[in-house]
Amino acid sequence: MDPNGRTAMTYRVGVIGGGQLARMMIAPAVELGVEIRVLAEQEGMAAALAASAVGDYRDADTVLAFAREVDVVTFDHEHVPQQVLRALVDAGVAVHPGPDALRYAQDKLLMRTRLQEMGMPQPDWAAVTGPDELAAFLDAHGGRAVVKTPRGGYDGKGVRVVSSPDGAADWFTALAEDAGGGALLVEERVEFTRELAQQVARTPSGAVRAYPVVETVQRDGVCAEVLAPAPSGSARLAATAAEVGERIAEGLGVTGMLAVELFETADDRILVNELAMRPHNSGHWSQDGAVTSQFEQHLRAVLDLPLGDTSPVAPWSVMINILGGPSEGGLSERFAAAMAQHPYARIHTYGKEPRPGRKVGHVNAFGADLDDVVYDARAAAAFFQG
Amino acid sequence: MDPNGRTAMTYRVGVIGGGQLARMMIAPAVELGVEIRVLAEQEGMAAALAASAVGDYRDADTVLAFAREVDVVTFDHEHVPQQVLRALVDAGVAVHPGPDALRYAQDKLLMRTRLQEMGMPQPDWAAVTGPDELAAFLDAHGGRAVVKTPRGGYDGKGVRVVSSPDGAADWFTALAEDAGGGALLVEERVEFTRELAQQVARTPSGAVRAYPVVETVQRDGVCAEVLAPAPSGSARLAATAAEVGERIAEGLGVTGMLAVELFETADDRILVNELAMRPHNSGHWSQDGAVTSQFEQHLRAVLDLPLGDTSPVAPWSVMINILGGPSEGGLSERFAAAMAQHPYARIHTYGKEPRPGRKVGHVNAFGADLDDVVYDARAAAAFFQG
Repeated sequence: MDPNGRTAMTYRVGVIGGGQLARMMIAPAVELGVEIRVLAEQEGMAAALAASAVGDYRDADTVLAFAREVDVVTFDHEHVPQQVLRALVDAGVAVHPGPDALRYAQDKLLMRTRLQEMGMPQPDWAAVTGPDELAAFLDAHGGRAVVKTPRGGYDGKGVRVVSSPDGAADWFTALAEDAGGGALLVEERVEFTRELAQQVARTPSGAVRAYPVVETVQRDGVCAEVLAPAPSGSARLAATAAEVGERIAEGLGVTGMLAVELFETADDRILVNELAMRPHNSGHWSQDGAVTSQFEQHLRAVLDLPLGDTSPVAPWSVMINILGGPSEGGLSERFAAAMAQHPYARIHTYGKEPRPGRKVGHVNAFGADLDDVVYDARAAAAFFQG
Repeated sequence: MDPNGRTAMTYRVGVIGGGQLARMMIAPAVELGVEIRVLAEQEGMAAALAASAVGDYRDADTVLAFAREVDVVTFDHEHVPQQVLRALVDAGVAVHPGPDALRYAQDKLLMRTRLQEMGMPQPDWAAVTGPDELAAFLDAHGGRAVVKTPRGGYDGKGVRVVSSPDGAADWFTALAEDAGGGALLVEERVEFTRELAQQVARTPSGAVRAYPVVETVQRDGVCAEVLAPAPSGSARLAATAAEVGERIAEGLGVTGMLAVELFETADDRILVNELAMRPHNSGHWSQDGAVTSQFEQHLRAVLDLPLGDTSPVAPWSVMINILGGPSEGGLSERFAAAMAQHPYARIHTYGKEPRPGRKVGHVNAFGADLDDVVYDARAAAAFFQG
């Protein structure tokens, strides 16, 4: 026993939200000797094994009672309201990431404003409070643009491409009905050549470690495939992306894992698309393809422990998401068939009821030849599609 | 949902015994989507997170009640009595490894007899029922030999080097007092150059996969360090060891993981020392150093799922055990210091109260240069010693 009465390293981490990101923290927590407790939204969620409580994360009393039993509170998602986060901080709870950082993940207008102050590369954007302002932005940007609700969007929800102010009419109506007023975010429609993601871990003490920048392939607004590191990426690209990630983590005071989604343009620029302050789908490859997975790194970071090495264990890693399909018959037989045909594939599953389009698992593969690795991962994942 | 009402792959595995081997099955179970339940000997053991029951594994009713809630029963240790195992099988429970295989791990005389029938390479041995027989064996083997109690030994317990029958006098007395009678096992003292271990997974359907043979370094009868694969091992050595492992797994009907501890002799023979029918300390390197860890492989095997790839992810892996020392102050600070100095080291801890000599965790490292990897692993582990 050490002076704090701890055996080994029995730090207690409390995770708010019982989804797959919380679930995937369980494995590294067990290996690190970190006790993990989850406040789940309901029974039987993905992280049920560690769910020590079930309750509403929007209720300050529920969250405070949960927080009292742990050393640090962190998150499966970014939806905990600011007033609940502030109540935790006021009660002396260590919260990582904290409310000051999380508000930039919760409000895309705040995020754009702050990144602009910091001189980060991003698409042209504006806050528009009505159709006229949106029309003016469209006129100045070739007649098309991306409109986003500043709050509440994920996986492509709350995002639309419009070519006239009519395309956002219902959102403006909702804004007008909201007593608080407000604005929509409009961004230029970037003609990107591909999408990238840069992950960075940062501790409360200020230590920072970047992962290799990866290429993400989206389908229907949802991440479908990740190639790590981003193929054909120059050393300059990798260094620039890492620098952008590190500067944002520092500038926004992020603690834990940060994911910066990026557009790469034909003229070799990168522009910040979205931020996520938690483990992220673009980093699932690291579970098998990096020395330290993003889930272990997130635990180390929020506990203010030294960060682990982010080096890849092989030249190439590929992650393919498994989405629930229209026909779900015999999923356990499909798993067995995929395992039999692809013993090299690393299959991860979230214990979630499949529904069309719902992320229910992913497959990782890694190796020396990118084509082989892509083939292996896609072929194994194909057993679960359709 | 598939026809069995399973979402994804919600097989349920029940593990008897709540030690670190059960604990280390939790992480791959979560990732595979396998539900894991543990029957622990007491509260607060290493595998507490998955402990759905606490009870005595020697009591058939306790074990049967536990077994009814799972699809297959497996083990953290080999101490479940045969009559309890038979009661499970009689009740229609899938038990892997089964009682017919486990009796060879539970009784070293049975094991030696069976391996001799199979023509496996092993040290000279005999069953001795009294001092005279032991004296005769000593005379025939240079005056020194290894005496073992056939049942109940582990980590060097129940094993003695003797140079006279007096050295086993108390064990003979105990045998005489035991109404069932019996014999001690005596083995020639092999002049080995080093110790090796061969791990093999086998499914109930008969699929078999061998891991690379490894070198194990013992101190005071306890595994201290493992080098994977065994350095300076010829292709012939690797093939011979794998064949011995596979033949034993098949010949003894082992299901799940089998570890075969081997002596390598100066004249390039390998001789079978001990068997373990479960994940084994000699395979902890595979958690970070192989595509499929022994813990995931054990789950796949006992569920009769296809086995995963056993290839190493790097040319060399090294595992160093962390033993509780006389001074335990500030273990959590030591963890942080080890992490800070060795971000590449993979630290695993078992959530156990440290006691001198007790295994409380291990460190893995892997990479391209054996000397570097050994250095890294030893240097990180050194933070926890003494």
